Amino acid sequence: MRNLTRAERAQLAMVLEVSAFPKPGNVDRCHDFPSTRLEHFLASAILAGPALEAAERGGRGLGGLIHEAVELTCGHSGGNTHFGAFILLVPLVAGDGIEGANRLVKETDVEDSIEFYRAFGKTDVRVIPGHELDVHDPASLKEIRERGMTLYDLMLYSAPRDMVAREWVSGFQMTRKGADLLHAAGCGRQGIVEAYLSLLALEPDTFVIKKYGAEVAGMTMRKARQVIEGVRDLQAFDQECIEKGINPGSTADIIIASLYTALGEGWEWDC
Amino acid sequence: MRNLTRAERAQLAMVLEVSAFPKPGNVDRCHDFPSTRLEHFLASAILAGPALEAAERGGRGLGGLIHEAVELTCGHSGGNTHFGAFILLVPLVAGDGIEGANRLVKETDVEDSIEFYRAFGKTDVRVIPGHELDVHDPASLKEIRERGMTLYDLMLYSAPRDMVAREWVSGFQMTRKGADLLHAAGCGRQGIVEAYLSLLALEPDTFVIKKYGAEVAGMTMRKARQVIEGVRDLQAFDQECIEKGINPGSTADIIIASLYTALGEGWEWDC
Repeated sequence: MRNLTRAERAQLAMVLEVSAFPKPGNVDRCHDFPSTRLEHFLASAILAGPALEAAERGGRGLGGLIHEAVELTCGHSGGNTHFGAFILLVPLVAGDGIEGANRLVKETDVEDSIEFYRAFGKTDVRVIPGHELDVHDPASLKEIRERGMTLYDLMLYSAPRDMVAREWVSGFQMTRKGADLLHAAGCGRQGIVEAYLSLLALEPDTFVIKKYGAEVAGMTMRKARQVIEGVRDLQAFDQECIEKGINPGSTADIIIASLYTALGEGWEWDC
Repeated sequence: MRNLTRAERAQLAMVLEVSAFPKPGNVDRCHDFPSTRLEHFLASAILAGPALEAAERGGRGLGGLIHEAVELTCGHSGGNTHFGAFILLVPLVAGDGIEGANRLVKETDVEDSIEFYRAFGKTDVRVIPGHELDVHDPASLKEIRERGMTLYDLMLYSAPRDMVAREWVSGFQMTRKGADLLHAAGCGRQGIVEAYLSLLALEPDTFVIKKYGAEVAGMTMRKARQVIEGVRDLQAFDQECIEKGINPGSTADIIIASLYTALGEGWEWDC
């Protein structure tokens, strides 16, 4: 396998994640949502290319890069596909790994926040009323400027309720964990499914919490654990998540970041 | 949907083709070959990017560009994934459509042939003994030079036995037909399956001929026709092709070129 550019590695991580199966509750090779389908994710992975290449070249702010990735990919009917993934991939690509990403996220400024909120407004990402700055409310942008909130500050603010934001302030801890799980699980798509399940069993998915509350997210965690322990059937768990609309989308975002990281460390997708 | 670069459009065509299903006998969303899987095709679509971008920028020979596309993508264990597709996409991208491609293929020279044969040697594409110049035989390269064979000449030489080569000398007739079929079939992946079946019913797949002979290829054509006429079940036909190892790979290559063409004419993948 030739050496990949970092942008290519990020795109490869996106297509490998979405085509691995079964990933309980999420879009995968064998399952679509009614309005978000496999091809939306595949197209998004291709169309994000220029933003990821710009991140690799360096010299631009993370907020603007995330905004560009969203703009390049939001023109389809499938809604938000990779917004969470971009929040993680952009610093990882720009910083060439977790260490560099940790440095870059701390260097973000108010302009990054403004750009990020502009990107946010182009997605249909769920906002908890009263808990988050509302991107559709011009007062939020004013407040960001007045308070001098950097994008890191915004992530810190969202971290308790959003595991993707939490990655920025925790030093990409779950991303690292997911990469370790991939190395442990072994190569190829079976390894992706195992790492995804293990991550799902480790932390309540905050996308599920926002949609259904902490109890459902906690139950989903415990069921993932039971699948790993062999006392619950994987296919049945997938089916149950699908029927109930439980889609652990934030865990999937983190697995993409973990795949990016693990691929850079020699994890083999092809076996 | 934003305007895509031609290279992006080619990559999108590749991922749309492989994820459409069921495409009787071929790798699709629901079916892998034992050694060539969905993810090999997805990775290949991403990794071919730089060669397609170079084709779009212009100024380089088609043979060298095809060689570059093969080199960028041949590092996985899945064997030949998009070789036939590159033979079609490279002139279509470089020429910005069928008209320009027709002009460029006629302008190829001996160096394009040499580059092409170098690419060929990096794939495991089937060669009919006695019927084709053997890429593993240095005498072939010598013969190409001595006879002054351009890449167009090579395609002319292969055209009777290879429907992808035939596109170069027929003015991309099947590519055009496939694009028209896509427009007629309508948007999205269902349209891709219909266009693929119609193309399969129209001409014997030369990849199947090389593997099993003209009779099997002819029977496959007739069965595709019966599926279209509603007297044969699509799923059962797919299953039969898979069981017998009948994979109409050249038809799939042409459908990729047709998708590239149709997308440029406003055909919608997203509906």
